[in-house]
Amino acid sequence: MAVQTLPFSSLLYIDKKSATPVYRQLADALTNLIRNSKLKPGYQLPSSRAMALMLELNRTTIVAAYEELKIQGWLEVIERKGIFVSNKLPVVKPKPFQKEEPEKSFPETEHYFYHRFSDPPKGSRELKAYQLLINDGYPDQRIAPFDMIFNRYKTLIRRTYLHGTLLTEQAAGNSFLRKELADFISKTRALDIGPDNILITQGAQLAIFIAARMILRPGSTVVVGDLNYILANRLFEELGAKLIKVRIDDDGIDVDAIEEICRTQKPDLLYLIPHHHHPTTVTLSGERRIKLLDIIRRYKLPVIEDDYDYDFHYENSPILPLASAAHGGYVLYIGSISKTLSPTVRLGYLVGSSDFIWQAAKLKQMVDIRGDVLFEESIAHLFNSGEMQKHLRRSVELYKHRRDLFCDALQIAASDIVNFERPKGGMAVWAVFPKEYSVTLLAERMAGKGAFLSDGSIYPYNSRINGVRLGFASLNPSEIAQFMQTLKDTL
Amino acid sequence: MAVQTLPFSSLLYIDKKSATPVYRQLADALTNLIRNSKLKPGYQLPSSRAMALMLELNRTTIVAAYEELKIQGWLEVIERKGIFVSNKLPVVKPKPFQKEEPEKSFPETEHYFYHRFSDPPKGSRELKAYQLLINDGYPDQRIAPFDMIFNRYKTLIRRTYLHGTLLTEQAAGNSFLRKELADFISKTRALDIGPDNILITQGAQLAIFIAARMILRPGSTVVVGDLNYILANRLFEELGAKLIKVRIDDDGIDVDAIEEICRTQKPDLLYLIPHHHHPTTVTLSGERRIKLLDIIRRYKLPVIEDDYDYDFHYENSPILPLASAAHGGYVLYIGSISKTLSPTVRLGYLVGSSDFIWQAAKLKQMVDIRGDVLFEESIAHLFNSGEMQKHLRRSVELYKHRRDLFCDALQIAASDIVNFERPKGGMAVWAVFPKEYSVTLLAERMAGKGAFLSDGSIYPYNSRINGVRLGFASLNPSEIAQFMQTLKDTL
Repeated sequence: MAVQTLPFSSLLYIDKKSATPVYRQLADALTNLIRNSKLKPGYQLPSSRAMALMLELNRTTIVAAYEELKIQGWLEVIERKGIFVSNKLPVVKPKPFQKEEPEKSFPETEHYFYHRFSDPPKGSRELKAYQLLINDGYPDQRIAPFDMIFNRYKTLIRRTYLHGTLLTEQAAGNSFLRKELADFISKTRALDIGPDNILITQGAQLAIFIAARMILRPGSTVVVGDLNYILANRLFEELGAKLIKVRIDDDGIDVDAIEEICRTQKPDLLYLIPHHHHPTTVTLSGERRIKLLDIIRRYKLPVIEDDYDYDFHYENSPILPLASAAHGGYVLYIGSISKTLSPTVRLGYLVGSSDFIWQAAKLKQMVDIRGDVLFEESIAHLFNSGEMQKHLRRSVELYKHRRDLFCDALQIAASDIVNFERPKGGMAVWAVFPKEYSVTLLAERMAGKGAFLSDGSIYPYNSRINGVRLGFASLNPSEIAQFMQTLKDTL
Repeated sequence: MAVQTLPFSSLLYIDKKSATPVYRQLADALTNLIRNSKLKPGYQLPSSRAMALMLELNRTTIVAAYEELKIQGWLEVIERKGIFVSNKLPVVKPKPFQKEEPEKSFPETEHYFYHRFSDPPKGSRELKAYQLLINDGYPDQRIAPFDMIFNRYKTLIRRTYLHGTLLTEQAAGNSFLRKELADFISKTRALDIGPDNILITQGAQLAIFIAARMILRPGSTVVVGDLNYILANRLFEELGAKLIKVRIDDDGIDVDAIEEICRTQKPDLLYLIPHHHHPTTVTLSGERRIKLLDIIRRYKLPVIEDDYDYDFHYENSPILPLASAAHGGYVLYIGSISKTLSPTVRLGYLVGSSDFIWQAAKLKQMVDIRGDVLFEESIAHLFNSGEMQKHLRRSVELYKHRRDLFCDALQIAASDIVNFERPKGGMAVWAVFPKEYSVTLLAERMAGKGAFLSDGSIYPYNSRINGVRLGFASLNPSEIAQFMQTLKDTL
């Protein structure tokens, strides 16, 4: 018996003691299943022999029931294939106790027993296929070393002895990857850490969630930039916290304002993106960092430093993260491997004191037991063999080149309209349009021409700012040219 | 410049106006970096030329500083390779203002600013490698069709047009997979659903978390079995809910007790594992299901039905899930793809009304933006091509065979000691040992012989019950024999 056959012995209730003949009961029961859409048109029924075995009835009884339904038009026989629910079902005169429409398995309840965030949009939710996608600032997955990763994965699958170790992984993630990451992060961010300082998460978002949930309670306050990564804001509010918004200018967040807030209130958390702030791509100046570190120490202000973009710098050495300076233990550091390999890969990390990471791992285990330990092990191998470092070097070179191509072309195509700066790092340009060129409308028109770009509508302030992030890193030269042409035509 | 070189221009502060010679300032600064473990033994410094460029100093200045440190023993030159931080660092007479130990980047703070769950264990957390792993009840990853999955993944990576569609995926998960799952779940569970009823999660645990978080508030009450899946209990308590425990016997959970609880209190949620309850593997009888459905409708009791194990039945047709009957919209259904392919694959699903799923997707997005959309698409292809169904059929056959081998061998090896039943489905045997044979001690002794089994210590009731889940599905015959031998030797 194929495992995917419906368990008919549970679905069909035959009362052998009833006055109604068994074959008739069976035929009625099958008819009901078809009417209620539990057996859909085209569904292949078990052979009469198989059904007889399942229901512990005579085969002749089954044959008789099937015959009945064939005559009535519910079932059809296809030569050499079998017996199927008919594609053209007969019209049924409604019986008073029967609903016209099939009962859906998950109807809406009278009253909601759950938390609601918003109303779903009406109408079709079909996804279009676009020829061109201008993303938020992601790497080009086409250059990622997937062959190496998957070959390693398959090798690990075969090695029996390994599965013993890997499935007893600690909640903080694959230990080989944590060791490699500790090494890599130490070297590149000047952090003094070991594997016990690292929690591996399935993406930086989960790291933000875990860290925030460890710190915030309903009524807590979080200091954020007035332009901020929207999913972070939503998350903090979902956890019951109130946002205190601080201005972001060309040198990053207004650190004097943060001090004032610390002086007068007692904020529970600061969420910061010091490198290539999201969405504006500005970087916190060195002078402000020093001030901020002083504030953090003096007021013992917990900080989540979201450093998703550190690995891509095109000019001078980057300014080091806050976490690498003396912050007294109040800064938690978040990074993303997704951002170095492919938007499809979900891997990030949270760095903190070993006690914090231990607690965070316990929390994470309740939300998501573990990641794909073999995938994590394969990524660790990428670091250990030097391939990841090679990939990063190649990526930086390539994306720098694409940045220049993109910005030069954007200059030519639309500099009289678009206001933007050539970014010193990261994978996106922050492009601000004048009021007359609504980004929402622009995105709509470009979608009509087959090019998808973020329409800025997820940024609630965009009626004021009218900007959009244009990710250049995953576009090859011909795609850049295509985008510019579409943009010119649209404007 | 290799991208992984430390950004020295940020780390070293040279004051050209100072009285101290620049080369001396540089030497002192480098010494401090080494003392504070920011430059670790074996670290290769940039060439004098590269360093000069970075710091905008004369090359002779760099050479002089390096010479100084070589003489003092901080650096060593390796012929034809370069200049490295010495592996044998000189002893430093402590200066009054300097700490003896290097400053760790993430020290413990005086007061915890975060939620703590427990104290970490002292001492080494090294993981051993085991020859044999008896898991909790997972499939054998060695028979999973990874070649097909990865080949598809790589094909999708190359197809440029696809990345446009895939990255605009809705929060509920890859739409192709949701369509295939809707189809598969409809056919096998007799559910009448479409893609809008499905939320894809990275594992069933995340599905439980999201569903629970949608429903529970601090002070809520959750009805659970007195023996229950421990990570579900921890999760509900973390969300601030109180557990009301109900007895589990050979026919499953005590449904009359549930009715009494509904009558006298107003519980907010029932968490149920009707098939192969965790850990005991008992299944809720058909009679109790009918009673329970009546209770659910009458009291409008929200239910999370965790059906992680439905796809593996070895005897008759399985009894259908609660979700397939008329529950009025109060049952949420959870399933696991991880349990059908490999413990490393993290894929599960939550099924509910389309409004619930919409809201749940919005919440999930805050916790984890999306899964690996290409992996989800590749799994969808597995369903669509019929390969997944083939794989399931092969698995059921194989695991049935292994169940029999395992149970026969266990009977021979230890039937006078171990109390267990041959399970009708699922991938584990629930083995109860008499008090004299503490499962914790047993697990410790077997670990000493290289065989890892769950030591039961995660089940807080185990001082009373003394049982352990023995996963047979991922053991081949020689591994089964090995386990039995080790067990016999240990007992």
